[in-house]
Amino acid sequence: MPALDPIGHVTSPLTDRHAAPKQGSEGSPEAWIELRPEFRDAARDLRVGSAILVLTWLDRAARDVQLVHPRDKEHAELRGVFSTRSPDRPNPIGIHRVTILEVDDGLRFKVRDLEAIDGTPIVDIKPVLDRDRER
Amino acid sequence: MPALDPIGHVTSPLTDRHAAPKQGSEGSPEAWIELRPEFRDAARDLRVGSAILVLTWLDRAARDVQLVHPRDKEHAELRGVFSTRSPDRPNPIGIHRVTILEVDDGLRFKVRDLEAIDGTPIVDIKPVLDRDRER
Repeated sequence: MPALDPIGHVTSPLTDRHAAPKQGSEGSPEAWIELRPEFRDAARDLRVGSAILVLTWLDRAARDVQLVHPRDKEHAELRGVFSTRSPDRPNPIGIHRVTILEVDDGLRFKVRDLEAIDGTPIVDIKPVLDRDRER
Repeated sequence: MPALDPIGHVTSPLTDRHAAPKQGSEGSPEAWIELRPEFRDAARDLRVGSAILVLTWLDRAARDVQLVHPRDKEHAELRGVFSTRSPDRPNPIGIHRVTILEVDDGLRFKVRDLEAIDGTPIVDIKPVLDRDRER
């Protein structure tokens, strides 16, 4: 099984999974992406204003869940997790679209709309492409 | 280090990384997502016409690369991989936005615009949300 090597972690005032907003645009506080020093080169072209996808490993998720109730609808029918954004899923990788607000020393990035909780491992950062919006 | 447990793999006529289109909309042939039988429940609400994000593990990528030349610009300046979609990166997770064309037995899904090469492990499937387009 392929092993992920976290490139850093999230620092956020959000500490409780159940208090966290379900999606970033629903009122997440500002948070910091903190990268490990050995990834300085990989991060060197990230700029204030850049729209990025942050991929996280949702380490507090349940990996043995295949069916969930849709959010805020406890009495609705169960739904296959591949048709939901539930963190509980076989490989709990989170995708967060955020904007960089501030860069500190090339390794710390303040962002808005990041719903991940404090300490969540980060595994990748990718630029948002136009095609992500168009299709 | 967290370990990924592939949920399935890609079956595609694309077999050569260097012959594959760089992004799915650039002429990928139709391909199949083939899931392992134990994930039948998680996949049960995937339908023809659904727009999904397929997350893959790009197992032929180089994980020790932090700087790359932008695509098709060998003489351009090197760029940090977190500002590119290069498959070569510390954790080579691919994100592919595709549309389901056909469902076979609840475990096989024919899709278009999937640029991954034959045999690529699949680690997650998520629905495309409106917010992915808007932001």
